Amino acid sequence: MKKSTATLLVTCPDQRGLVAAIANFVVEHGGNILHADQHKDDDASLFLMRVEWELEGFSIPTEDFAFAFKPVADRFNMKWRLALSETKSRTAILVSKYDHCLADLLYRHKSGELNCEIPIIVSNHAECKEMAETHGIPFRLVPVNATDKSISEREIIDTLKQERIDLVVLARYMQILTPAFVKEFPHRMINIHHSFLPAFLGAKPYHRAHERGVKLIGATSHYVTEVLDDGPIIEQDVIRISHRDQVDDLLQKGRDLEKIVLSRAVRWHLENRILVYGNKTVVFG
Amino acid sequence: MKKSTATLLVTCPDQRGLVAAIANFVVEHGGNILHADQHKDDDASLFLMRVEWELEGFSIPTEDFAFAFKPVADRFNMKWRLALSETKSRTAILVSKYDHCLADLLYRHKSGELNCEIPIIVSNHAECKEMAETHGIPFRLVPVNATDKSISEREIIDTLKQERIDLVVLARYMQILTPAFVKEFPHRMINIHHSFLPAFLGAKPYHRAHERGVKLIGATSHYVTEVLDDGPIIEQDVIRISHRDQVDDLLQKGRDLEKIVLSRAVRWHLENRILVYGNKTVVFG
Amino acid sequence: MKKSTATLLVTCPDQRGLVAAIANFVVEHGGNILHADQHKDDDASLFLMRVEWELEGFSIPTEDFAFAFKPVADRFNMKWRLALSETKSRTAILVSKYDHCLADLLYRHKSGELNCEIPIIVSNHAECKEMAETHGIPFRLVPVNATDKSISEREIIDTLKQERIDLVVLARYMQILTPAFVKEFPHRMINIHHSFLPAFLGAKPYHRAHERGVKLIGATSHYVTEVLDDGPIIEQDVIRISHRDQVDDLLQKGRDLEKIVLSRAVRWHLENRILVYGNKTVVFG
Amino acid sequence: MKKSTATLLVTCPDQRGLVAAIANFVVEHGGNILHADQHKDDDASLFLMRVEWELEGFSIPTEDFAFAFKPVADRFNMKWRLALSETKSRTAILVSKYDHCLADLLYRHKSGELNCEIPIIVSNHAECKEMAETHGIPFRLVPVNATDKSISEREIIDTLKQERIDLVVLARYMQILTPAFVKEFPHRMINIHHSFLPAFLGAKPYHRAHERGVKLIGATSHYVTEVLDDGPIIEQDVIRISHRDQVDDLLQKGRDLEKIVLSRAVRWHLENRILVYGNKTVVFG
Repeated sequence: MKKSTATLLVTCPDQRGLVAAIANFVVEHGGNILHADQHKDDDASLFLMRVEWELEGFSIPTEDFAFAFKPVADRFNMKWRLALSETKSRTAILVSKYDHCLADLLYRHKSGELNCEIPIIVSNHAECKEMAETHGIPFRLVPVNATDKSISEREIIDTLKQERIDLVVLARYMQILTPAFVKEFPHRMINIHHSFLPAFLGAKPYHRAHERGVKLIGATSHYVTEVLDDGPIIEQDVIRISHRDQVDDLLQKGRDLEKIVLSRAVRWHLENRILVYGNKTVVFG
Repeated sequence: MKKSTATLLVTCPDQRGLVAAIANFVVEHGGNILHADQHKDDDASLFLMRVEWELEGFSIPTEDFAFAFKPVADRFNMKWRLALSETKSRTAILVSKYDHCLADLLYRHKSGELNCEIPIIVSNHAECKEMAETHGIPFRLVPVNATDKSISEREIIDTLKQERIDLVVLARYMQILTPAFVKEFPHRMINIHHSFLPAFLGAKPYHRAHERGVKLIGATSHYVTEVLDDGPIIEQDVIRISHRDQVDDLLQKGRDLEKIVLSRAVRWHLENRILVYGNKTVVFG
Repeated sequence: MKKSTATLLVTCPDQRGLVAAIANFVVEHGGNILHADQHKDDDASLFLMRVEWELEGFSIPTEDFAFAFKPVADRFNMKWRLALSETKSRTAILVSKYDHCLADLLYRHKSGELNCEIPIIVSNHAECKEMAETHGIPFRLVPVNATDKSISEREIIDTLKQERIDLVVLARYMQILTPAFVKEFPHRMINIHHSFLPAFLGAKPYHRAHERGVKLIGATSHYVTEVLDDGPIIEQDVIRISHRDQVDDLLQKGRDLEKIVLSRAVRWHLENRILVYGNKTVVFG
Repeated sequence: MKKSTATLLVTCPDQRGLVAAIANFVVEHGGNILHADQHKDDDASLFLMRVEWELEGFSIPTEDFAFAFKPVADRFNMKWRLALSETKSRTAILVSKYDHCLADLLYRHKSGELNCEIPIIVSNHAECKEMAETHGIPFRLVPVNATDKSISEREIIDTLKQERIDLVVLARYMQILTPAFVKEFPHRMINIHHSFLPAFLGAKPYHRAHERGVKLIGATSHYVTEVLDDGPIIEQDVIRISHRDQVDDLLQKGRDLEKIVLSRAVRWHLENRILVYGNKTVVFG
């Protein structure tokens, strides 16, 4: 059985003594450190650390952690977050018609790879209803309101809040979200999109990649920010193609990539491995 | 010992009977086909074929091939090119200060991987002179003429023509060539440049990729056309990076990629594996 | 809509005139060749070819093909096989408890990636029954007969024959098959297994790979022959791991690899892209 | 300019308080930690750590470090090693006739990628003499003594000792070393060899991989131990091949892999990133 652990994620201005100060705090309160990983961004003079320890023997109750850690946090001007392995994130999946990412996430969830609950699947189309129900997960159909998109967005936000959602996964949800929506889930909404070298902006990118004769196609998962497809990158991967691949083959290979790249990002988020700063991420291994 | 072979590259409107017609022509004149590869681009209604056969026993002398093949070529409205394995392409390398691609190409040439002669290395800087001379290859320094760039370009073109150059390899030659230069070597000039997902236009792309926290960096080799870095892609590859990689690490990994991606493109060109049409390539395996 | 096509796969001793003879046969009977791909194995003096043409306009009815092609086949001593795109292979999946490959194949089948029917899923355990039924596919439980394994094998063979099965996919079926079973499906049974550098024979290979600190893990799909895990290789792939990956991570990454490598092999088989000779395959691109 | 740093590598039985104890030691003596990375092997109950700090401001002179660190080391029963970025390892390269790895290492050394001196190149053949001399590095020819191999080995050992060699790189040195030789450079001798899935033992592995129709070929770099090709793995990589690749293509692709995999291992060793325990390595990123 997996041990109960706490994970502390810290970001602060780089100073001497940070690793020691954090490690000391954990050790002095009886925590046995399992993993400690830190990174410095010299350009930004920023220190980032992830430390995970066993809760057994740790003398500070979770509800008192903030108070106990405050002197250290204040001294170094830290931004920090504590996550417990036993607290499963409540994760919502938004999907449109393409169901490959949804199917993949549901299979991984069922087989125990994703440390989360999935209380709701939301879609602007009915196609994925059956798949949701087969997995025993409530499906909420919210068609896009043609006259005023903000009405349907409001409905989705209300649904997500009601379900106390921690993480929103856009599993090929083909609607552009308004800044108002994005602001509700800062660094807690993950998207997947295709990536090419060179990039093809606009519609039908796989068709255009085929026209251009590219030799690789890629996919990128990222946190959603107000600038479309430009949020902090979590993971990327590519697959080789050749002139023998027709547009259909590109689409099929693209689906395989999208599944894998999105599921990695979701898993790392759920394992509290990702720290965001500026417009980039550190993913601790 | 390798057999002497002829390779025929054909492009024409797609019609019935093309594979048979070409294969028949070779066989009827005593050629033993070693490789035959064809491709159809349905969108362009275009047929592309590469066929390679042993010269031993082939009854048409090279100088008469065009005349003998004319009836077939005319009937199907073919564009074609014949290449002999015994004819070594005369290849010039243009380089600036960074010598990693040059060093790699020279090593591969020496070890027999590249079926070409390298009669001249041209540079706008003196840094690579020693490396050229160590390999016994004439080095021609042509500094960029600050007042009129076309003067130095003219000098390079004259040098290349004098050396009867078939292929120009831009091995990190850091000057933008004028359309006048590019027109002299249509589909016979290969360049290498970095590629990112997403793309970073402008200066210092590795620095910007680092700022953006990308997880992959790439390189693309392509034929040079008048539109900068937008010619037909020959080969692409990527390498994984992480937040631990500093800009120097990115540059070093980028160099390794550039070497490999450029040398593959050059080798395939020299093996007559590449057919260009529209703004794309078919690379026969 | 996809065109109806015929695919001819040919193996024969290498001789002059083969490409022309086959192409001529197709063209003379009104076939429009879509793809033609050939390969020579110089060591074995063997010629292998795959040619696919549109059935529309082709003048030979399928049932007469063997008779019509006989003169060509006899002249060159060919082994050949004709496959029609409209004939869906009847594919059985054998599985034990691990369901990741099964789930992946069923999803791909449903989304149209695999050109086959799946009339039956056979297992020695009950775990996958629900998944089969969710997809509306009959599930046949055949527990291993502890005293005489050949009894349960006989039952499986009878089931497969009754269902007129063309292809058997071992999707993590954890029983070693007897030669008697294997002989029933020569080059028509595909298996998936883990692969490591170096190889780890025997039980718990992922544990041993972890102990050994390997940096890559792999998977191999192959046709099943009488020698365990030693049949003609169809596809292989690897994924990078590090010391941070625990055995559980290796198992999870291994599952992802196994799914992808097995599904590629099955798809290529169903697209009639694979020719087997000696103990190896040619996979036409 | 790069900062002067010290790197401490520690291995010890896993206990509470290790990260804090080591970090405290550095901080209390004025060291500014740049990187700290640790790993636990739960199966072996082992703790491994790499910590690198700026020497500027660090109050303990290098010659006194062992004495000052002793209380910490003793308390936790640590094995440790201190390395300074300013101390360049003295690295010898052993080579036979194939020069691709040698050429690659020399180019990387010249361009500043490898933090070492190369005072000597040793070979049992004369072929690489010219390459060594072009780079201004002494070349020592030690032919294998046909009647008593230990005589030539003794000569090599004496040469390496005389040159005070820290690291021995076997860059395609095609002689099997005796245990007596290996013992002289424990975890300080790096080898490169080809790797296949499945493995092919014995002679001409690339020929046998071609016969077997493998779809990937690989290379492995490892520390040399007394058991042939079975020492702790440092790095592995693979490249995709197809039926179109002849044995010569495999050899060429294999050479490209060998160069890259060996140079990564050498660089990581020189950057003090590798900790060996049992028969495996941890490579800190």
